[in-house]
Amino acid sequence: MSFTLKNIISIKDFSKKDINEILKSAESLEAVARSKEKSDSLTGKILGMMFYEPSTRTRLSFETAMKRLNGGVIGFAETGASSVTKGENLADTARMVAEYADALVIRHDLEGAARYVSDMVDVPVINAGDGAGQHPTQTLLDLFTMQRIMGKIKGLKVALIGDLKYGRTVHSLSYALGMYGVKMSFVSPDELKMPPGIVHDLNQNNVVAQETSDINEVLDEVDVLYVTRIQKERFPDPEEYSRIKGAYRIDYDLIKGKDLIVMHPLPKMDEIAHEVDHTPYGKYFEQAFYGVPVRMAILESLIKSF
Amino acid sequence: MSFTLKNIISIKDFSKKDINEILKSAESLEAVARSKEKSDSLTGKILGMMFYEPSTRTRLSFETAMKRLNGGVIGFAETGASSVTKGENLADTARMVAEYADALVIRHDLEGAARYVSDMVDVPVINAGDGAGQHPTQTLLDLFTMQRIMGKIKGLKVALIGDLKYGRTVHSLSYALGMYGVKMSFVSPDELKMPPGIVHDLNQNNVVAQETSDINEVLDEVDVLYVTRIQKERFPDPEEYSRIKGAYRIDYDLIKGKDLIVMHPLPKMDEIAHEVDHTPYGKYFEQAFYGVPVRMAILESLIKSF
Amino acid sequence: MSFTLKNIISIKDFSKKDINEILKSAESLEAVARSKEKSDSLTGKILGMMFYEPSTRTRLSFETAMKRLNGGVIGFAETGASSVTKGENLADTARMVAEYADALVIRHDLEGAARYVSDMVDVPVINAGDGAGQHPTQTLLDLFTMQRIMGKIKGLKVALIGDLKYGRTVHSLSYALGMYGVKMSFVSPDELKMPPGIVHDLNQNNVVAQETSDINEVLDEVDVLYVTRIQKERFPDPEEYSRIKGAYRIDYDLIKGKDLIVMHPLPKMDEIAHEVDHTPYGKYFEQAFYGVPVRMAILESLIKSF
Repeated sequence: MSFTLKNIISIKDFSKKDINEILKSAESLEAVARSKEKSDSLTGKILGMMFYEPSTRTRLSFETAMKRLNGGVIGFAETGASSVTKGENLADTARMVAEYADALVIRHDLEGAARYVSDMVDVPVINAGDGAGQHPTQTLLDLFTMQRIMGKIKGLKVALIGDLKYGRTVHSLSYALGMYGVKMSFVSPDELKMPPGIVHDLNQNNVVAQETSDINEVLDEVDVLYVTRIQKERFPDPEEYSRIKGAYRIDYDLIKGKDLIVMHPLPKMDEIAHEVDHTPYGKYFEQAFYGVPVRMAILESLIKSF
Repeated sequence: MSFTLKNIISIKDFSKKDINEILKSAESLEAVARSKEKSDSLTGKILGMMFYEPSTRTRLSFETAMKRLNGGVIGFAETGASSVTKGENLADTARMVAEYADALVIRHDLEGAARYVSDMVDVPVINAGDGAGQHPTQTLLDLFTMQRIMGKIKGLKVALIGDLKYGRTVHSLSYALGMYGVKMSFVSPDELKMPPGIVHDLNQNNVVAQETSDINEVLDEVDVLYVTRIQKERFPDPEEYSRIKGAYRIDYDLIKGKDLIVMHPLPKMDEIAHEVDHTPYGKYFEQAFYGVPVRMAILESLIKSF
Repeated sequence: MSFTLKNIISIKDFSKKDINEILKSAESLEAVARSKEKSDSLTGKILGMMFYEPSTRTRLSFETAMKRLNGGVIGFAETGASSVTKGENLADTARMVAEYADALVIRHDLEGAARYVSDMVDVPVINAGDGAGQHPTQTLLDLFTMQRIMGKIKGLKVALIGDLKYGRTVHSLSYALGMYGVKMSFVSPDELKMPPGIVHDLNQNNVVAQETSDINEVLDEVDVLYVTRIQKERFPDPEEYSRIKGAYRIDYDLIKGKDLIVMHPLPKMDEIAHEVDHTPYGKYFEQAFYGVPVRMAILESLIKSF
């Protein structure tokens, strides 16, 4: 692989060629991720997990990725059982784990934490979510899911739905989709529109997205509905919250007969009706699976093998 | 192995032939469990552990079983550090972990949770205890312990002692022992007798157990004392609790000179005197060990190797 | 290796020959610890970790040591998710984990816990810190650090600085350094002097250490400043604490131009200025790394390979 990034901090650090390299490598690792082939490419290697915030999905898929490649994992899943409770600062903890591991994965509640850590240690650092900031491996697995299920990314029509204001996932994803010439729609209540700064950035790169608050405007034309959760905390008025939540809920009646798939970064609450899980529309668990080969590709690219 | 169950949910799903297959396979894996031989039968395979209730013994013996076979383990040991705290439902969490793993082990406080999960996912599911329900691998290791230490199961005389009303372990075990024509005694205070439904079920299968509240009635004739804990919460009156607890406590004076062994699913509190630990009577730690080859046998039977 | 200790409980159990064996073996394992070479010396072996107190550094370096040698790890990192919460006693928990593992590592808040456990189980036991007691693998890695960085231990001049009264680390270390004929200085506030019992023990072995409360007295002559934290809880008067803390703080101005290194068992708070981290003086992260080859050497010596 000719991929050359040392750290995985933000999707903005990636060229389209970098992304393509990861997706290509992920595809070649899919049989290992599905446990249909064995690999020992990371035998004797150690991944250090520093999760200052809990995250089952991201943590477990990194662990599976590492272990399917025959590597080992150390670290902490939350900060209770770590020396963090003894008041050690982030830099010292990271430098310590870096002495024991060949790469670090960090999730932290503060934006910029992963970049800061990458400046402090010699081993590669992977950002697994830093507060309102970036979560680049999520974006890569979203792209990989589209490519594997739809056969391509370029030329797709993708609607991002729900909380586009605070949703870290959709910010990174819109940026990456723009690189591929995807036609995007941003579907959200007025209170939760995509931030003007991001829209401006996209426009600078000649990416124009349709913005609407009515999901029905996009249903007939999109290939992918990318749904995110609308959080109660965003609304002072509970009735307003209930009304809006209902207007962006995906159920079978809404999508039946349409030619589209439904994606979601998970965990989902009730923004997608359970009945959708068991239809060919619901692709979010398959999407979760695709996190494994994508993270395998990243780990293989960052950790020098014997 | 000709064992054909896809999931391990309840001992009632097992035929006697199924149980014999597991016990036979466990015996052949004992040298690996004792770390006297190596195995790589599950290289590259991942076991997903979903422990909604803490359980050191069951969790660690499954982990050792998987790792001695060169497989990997992911999951959560309690629900604090998982996305469960974000309100994700059980089905979604299970479907997610199933995307990363080749089999799931689940412990949950609600009866029926494991069966429900097995309907939701494509990978095999092992019930590691669901509330007042089943804990089939405990029963299998109890049987294996008797076979290995006593040389047989059929024809043994086994007394189940203590809390027979609420004890999940003794319910499953009595059912399985009935299949082997074991002569059983149920020894408990009146308040904690074996539930009539279970006694009725056993009778339907031509299994008759002696019931008594006096432990002295069985001591001279049994081969195995299977002791369980009597929990304080079962008694509104603390003095009544103390009196009853004392009457079912096993100490050296009670059993010395008898030809029997003492088993216990652990953890034990003071229902067995510490002095018994260091005598040939106390077999509960050896019993804990036998959980490893039994769980190895189950994992090998459920997870398709390369 | 001709090392013959069965358990690693206290540095006082070691002969100088024992220590030299471990250091020599650690040196040969350094390439594996740095992930420059592979090893499968502990394939199929399991290390059982019983951490009744959290400890990121010690726990993770043991895990890395075991995994770099291709072994597996089970256990608990704190007592919340274990059956300890169900009231099981230490001996029973240890005997249970010993049924699943080839060696135990225990950290406990009670002095003597590791020795007690070693009497209860058949597998080797490693003390990873027992309250105010011993932490022998820390001492061994401290010695290894000096040998690797300074090229020798014998003949060095080492100042132990800070809380010498309650600091478990410095008690064990002073004993071991005495065995090597190291010239020691004990630098502490009067309230936190090395306990007379330890000084007496050292004197019995013809080891004499200079005692002072003024760090400036030693700076020109020592090779190693071994710094420990002064804890606020030791001082009833916050102003007294602030004054003393300041007097023992190591910053760049204090040491620049001197021919010495700074060590620390970590985690450090503000007893060493951050600026020192990025100078050649600060060797504490390298010191943390040396815990890996030292623990590898211990694990290889205790766990019988196939």
